[in-house]
Amino acid sequence: MNSMRVAQVSEPGRPFEIVERELPEPGPGHVRIAVEASGVCHSDAAFVYNALPHVTFPLVTGHEVAGRIDALGEGVRYWTVGARVAVGWFGGHCGHCPPCREGHFIDCRNLQVPGWAYEGGYATHMVAPVNALARIPDGLTAVDAAPLGCAGVTTYNAFKRSSARPGDLVAVIGIGGLGHLAVQYAAKFGFETVAVARGEEKRALAMELGAHHYVDSSAGDTAKELQALGGATVVLATASNSQAMAAGVEGLQPGGELIVIGIDSEPLPITPAQLILSSRSVVGHPSGTSRDVEHTMEFSALAGIRPMTETVPLEEVNEAFARMMSGAARFRMVLVP
Amino acid sequence: MNSMRVAQVSEPGRPFEIVERELPEPGPGHVRIAVEASGVCHSDAAFVYNALPHVTFPLVTGHEVAGRIDALGEGVRYWTVGARVAVGWFGGHCGHCPPCREGHFIDCRNLQVPGWAYEGGYATHMVAPVNALARIPDGLTAVDAAPLGCAGVTTYNAFKRSSARPGDLVAVIGIGGLGHLAVQYAAKFGFETVAVARGEEKRALAMELGAHHYVDSSAGDTAKELQALGGATVVLATASNSQAMAAGVEGLQPGGELIVIGIDSEPLPITPAQLILSSRSVVGHPSGTSRDVEHTMEFSALAGIRPMTETVPLEEVNEAFARMMSGAARFRMVLVP
Amino acid sequence: MNSMRVAQVSEPGRPFEIVERELPEPGPGHVRIAVEASGVCHSDAAFVYNALPHVTFPLVTGHEVAGRIDALGEGVRYWTVGARVAVGWFGGHCGHCPPCREGHFIDCRNLQVPGWAYEGGYATHMVAPVNALARIPDGLTAVDAAPLGCAGVTTYNAFKRSSARPGDLVAVIGIGGLGHLAVQYAAKFGFETVAVARGEEKRALAMELGAHHYVDSSAGDTAKELQALGGATVVLATASNSQAMAAGVEGLQPGGELIVIGIDSEPLPITPAQLILSSRSVVGHPSGTSRDVEHTMEFSALAGIRPMTETVPLEEVNEAFARMMSGAARFRMVLVP
Amino acid sequence: MNSMRVAQVSEPGRPFEIVERELPEPGPGHVRIAVEASGVCHSDAAFVYNALPHVTFPLVTGHEVAGRIDALGEGVRYWTVGARVAVGWFGGHCGHCPPCREGHFIDCRNLQVPGWAYEGGYATHMVAPVNALARIPDGLTAVDAAPLGCAGVTTYNAFKRSSARPGDLVAVIGIGGLGHLAVQYAAKFGFETVAVARGEEKRALAMELGAHHYVDSSAGDTAKELQALGGATVVLATASNSQAMAAGVEGLQPGGELIVIGIDSEPLPITPAQLILSSRSVVGHPSGTSRDVEHTMEFSALAGIRPMTETVPLEEVNEAFARMMSGAARFRMVLVP
Repeated sequence: MNSMRVAQVSEPGRPFEIVERELPEPGPGHVRIAVEASGVCHSDAAFVYNALPHVTFPLVTGHEVAGRIDALGEGVRYWTVGARVAVGWFGGHCGHCPPCREGHFIDCRNLQVPGWAYEGGYATHMVAPVNALARIPDGLTAVDAAPLGCAGVTTYNAFKRSSARPGDLVAVIGIGGLGHLAVQYAAKFGFETVAVARGEEKRALAMELGAHHYVDSSAGDTAKELQALGGATVVLATASNSQAMAAGVEGLQPGGELIVIGIDSEPLPITPAQLILSSRSVVGHPSGTSRDVEHTMEFSALAGIRPMTETVPLEEVNEAFARMMSGAARFRMVLVP
Repeated sequence: MNSMRVAQVSEPGRPFEIVERELPEPGPGHVRIAVEASGVCHSDAAFVYNALPHVTFPLVTGHEVAGRIDALGEGVRYWTVGARVAVGWFGGHCGHCPPCREGHFIDCRNLQVPGWAYEGGYATHMVAPVNALARIPDGLTAVDAAPLGCAGVTTYNAFKRSSARPGDLVAVIGIGGLGHLAVQYAAKFGFETVAVARGEEKRALAMELGAHHYVDSSAGDTAKELQALGGATVVLATASNSQAMAAGVEGLQPGGELIVIGIDSEPLPITPAQLILSSRSVVGHPSGTSRDVEHTMEFSALAGIRPMTETVPLEEVNEAFARMMSGAARFRMVLVP
Repeated sequence: MNSMRVAQVSEPGRPFEIVERELPEPGPGHVRIAVEASGVCHSDAAFVYNALPHVTFPLVTGHEVAGRIDALGEGVRYWTVGARVAVGWFGGHCGHCPPCREGHFIDCRNLQVPGWAYEGGYATHMVAPVNALARIPDGLTAVDAAPLGCAGVTTYNAFKRSSARPGDLVAVIGIGGLGHLAVQYAAKFGFETVAVARGEEKRALAMELGAHHYVDSSAGDTAKELQALGGATVVLATASNSQAMAAGVEGLQPGGELIVIGIDSEPLPITPAQLILSSRSVVGHPSGTSRDVEHTMEFSALAGIRPMTETVPLEEVNEAFARMMSGAARFRMVLVP
Repeated sequence: MNSMRVAQVSEPGRPFEIVERELPEPGPGHVRIAVEASGVCHSDAAFVYNALPHVTFPLVTGHEVAGRIDALGEGVRYWTVGARVAVGWFGGHCGHCPPCREGHFIDCRNLQVPGWAYEGGYATHMVAPVNALARIPDGLTAVDAAPLGCAGVTTYNAFKRSSARPGDLVAVIGIGGLGHLAVQYAAKFGFETVAVARGEEKRALAMELGAHHYVDSSAGDTAKELQALGGATVVLATASNSQAMAAGVEGLQPGGELIVIGIDSEPLPITPAQLILSSRSVVGHPSGTSRDVEHTMEFSALAGIRPMTETVPLEEVNEAFARMMSGAARFRMVLVP
């Protein structure tokens, strides 16, 4: 079989169409992956609908990929055909810019994001550089592994780099694709975990995911409720809404951190006084490297953490995309070729 | 001599008047200080002009005090009459609230600020609790020591707690009462130091204070100029203006911190994307404890750092205050009884 | 009832005897506690058998105490009669020495240890200063709480202050009074947990306590086994034997920490090369403050961690002590008045 | 000119001999450097005299190299012929092992040390991989830059990664090739700096280098003298003698670190109690990456720090080596082709 299928968008805002293509050969330092599962992430919409810089069409998006290595490019060592690998938001670093030379690959000035810098995982096959590869541990299926390359690593890593320690009060704002994983990680990190979302519908689920407390943000003042619990060491804001994210800052105890991982073009409505008088910080957290994705998957396997997914055949990508955009997905649509 | 003089404000917004009073006796755990120098800080204006909660009139403000212990209250150990001491913004902690029990006294829920919680240093004498006292090292005069209890410790400590290390690029926004000390600390911490201010007038002074670079923020884009120098690890924003402080955020390199120490009631115009994509933080930094004031003074003595001061007799407090408010002071008015 | 019973040792090395005494009144800033449970710790033996400096006889030892406040001394606020409190190794700090002024109370130069600096908990009642008190959360019995004031906080805090993060490989050397708690904490902190002990007897128990791996240190090379698992980020050495503790150092991955909490008068057989070539550290970890004991108890209640205890009437203190010294206790003898 | 000269050792322990060779061509990802200065380090002796694993003869040692790029191998970007570069102890990392994937290149399992893994800088030319290259800033001569690639980066980085902050008391044990740089870095980092060496001969020099205090370790108890000064936050032990290095541990204040950078095959005579009771650590510090060497050189240029060197023609390498081994060198012998 020398062909593959991809779901591509021909022009900004057009629907995906399934196209047959010749199977690509991996170049030096690259591998080809037979895709087994590919998560659908909100940031894919930015690539598909907006005219982001450097995005070219036709476009094959997808940066939550799990599969098996199918072919090795020249000079590839340490990786073998058949190995189970994931490729996430971090699609490879240059190795030469100052952040790379400091070992901070996630801040690489030439960071490659799959589905943006090169063709992504909405396909039966894709090609990726070896520094984008994360080994999938036994005990995680491809469908469970795929969303960990972006939604998983982002939330796992946010807590791992934070100042919160077991027993501390930690809140998660927003229970969606990122938040439903964040609540699980928070609980398994040993935090006293508060889930914050609008309305009462997500209360039962949040408790099942391991939350110790639930705050309905539409019913009162989130910050006050956090202070009534003693004040949070960390608030992880996953909602893509600056107003909703900033609501957590006054719920922080002295020295606490509001970690933002949701993108919004509006400024965060936070004043200097809110930060200064209680030694608070607002921290922007990007995601994680391929090595971080491995840690995320290993910890998830160890702790029994799984994303909640709805699997859909690759052919139904437009339906999956629409379901994510409407907010109906619970919580990660995963394409299966 | 059983009397003292104080400069007091009888009602919000009224001028100071010099009043003779009976010399107070220090209570248990307190000492009386014969004041030798008392700095005039912008935050005093907030106490004098605004109806802040818990501020009562007549008011004796002043929280940058240097002098000698004059009398000991009951149960005071470790401190002796004649000892040279400073009292700064940190006027004592309760020892019982959660932050105090964690050892984070600066975040004490019952923090006492001199000139607010109790009568401050615009006077010939004042009374303070022992946990507000910082020993003045030999080699610092009272006039040099006084401003270090607030302007000094705030900037010294901001750098000390930051992630910047010798050789890193560090910028100071605003060259005033705080900033002219911050530039000196930055240079003596071994940072490649950038001073940022409006106009060209302060360029020569900034270089004398130790800056390696000067950026006129009115002439161009501060962030771009910082990026041209490689990007800052830390930007210390001393300007009490959210717009001016936020101008530094895009000048940060990945992982960098914008530390805000200037109070403004306007939100900081910073978006999540500005923080997330380069792992940046905005950090609110309060000040420091009496022990931190000691460290500040010891380091200043060791490194030859002095505040630039204009000394004025206590009787001329209204003139001194007016000069500070007009921005004419270079850079700290210090009252001498 | 105006009397209490204590288990006292009249001279170094003599057995405990039960003595009736007048009930003491708490002084200013102190409370009297009606003891409900009192753990027996190996370090008590040092007080009883050795002529340690400042230990005076007759001696009432015991620094793992849980009970209820029975009477308040003058000036005590925030604490009420009837409150459930624990007193551990940290029996109060002076508040005036340099470490105290830095907020590092555990390093207080005048640290008071109950059963050494003042009479401890092998009694029906004891008196303690308020800064020694830790509030016991609902859901922990006195018998479960008592050992957390020393064995618990020492191990919980060692991990909390360490560089290990969820998913990291962490080893515990020695499965005894400290180690059986350390394994539980490690597992609930989300670490991939390795228990290391001599022989096979403790394998099943270690796995029940949450360990993912067990290494019989008498059967092979501990360091090699840790390296085969990828290398440990942290090895917590609870064995009071320098040889056994040092065995972990070569099992550390680069940047890893060997944390020693077991006292031995022999030097640790570790060379500079073992540390330098892989950026390793050896860290001495003392214990924790009364606030840390609260965190320990709250986390233990949250995570379902309990010490394994054998309860014994206070009258049988000599039998309990003998059982601990022989190594037969599984794992903490607790005296109940 | 198609030939170069190297100083090579034909068999373990034999003298160096100057040999003419054909000029090597750099392979892919490598550059050829025209050497301008090459420092002589004590660890070169280990390669020359001992049968270390993987050392092959004839041997060209030297890992403190400064020069200019002379030729580029295939695929080299970002570096140009004529660029001034240094190559230090860190001679390149693999990029694939776990520490490399974490960004901790200095802990690379396949770390290449010049003069060990490949031919070093005792020569007119050498070939090195690009990830070993550090750009030399203007304002540093080749002779001044060369020793910074090992002696400089090791001491600069040790302080940079330590917990010491400006104003803290910091001691340097041993005033030799490493120590004379460490004292300068300590002073310019803003530390209150203590130099410790045997005898009085080095007192004047230590003060010139910036030390605030000098301790003659042969005249008394180093630890006691450090405690009399308040206790050290960091002791940097550069002496290759475990006994001498361990002498610092009791001079640490609570929470302090003894950082060892001197290799000795004897264990450090340090007991658990010395570490536990004051929360002390012993930290092994390796060196630094090529990026760290750049930071070291930039900071040295900024702060006016220079190694003290004696330059010697490459032809006199045996004399230079002998002078270093005898301890007569003050403080770094540098070979100039």
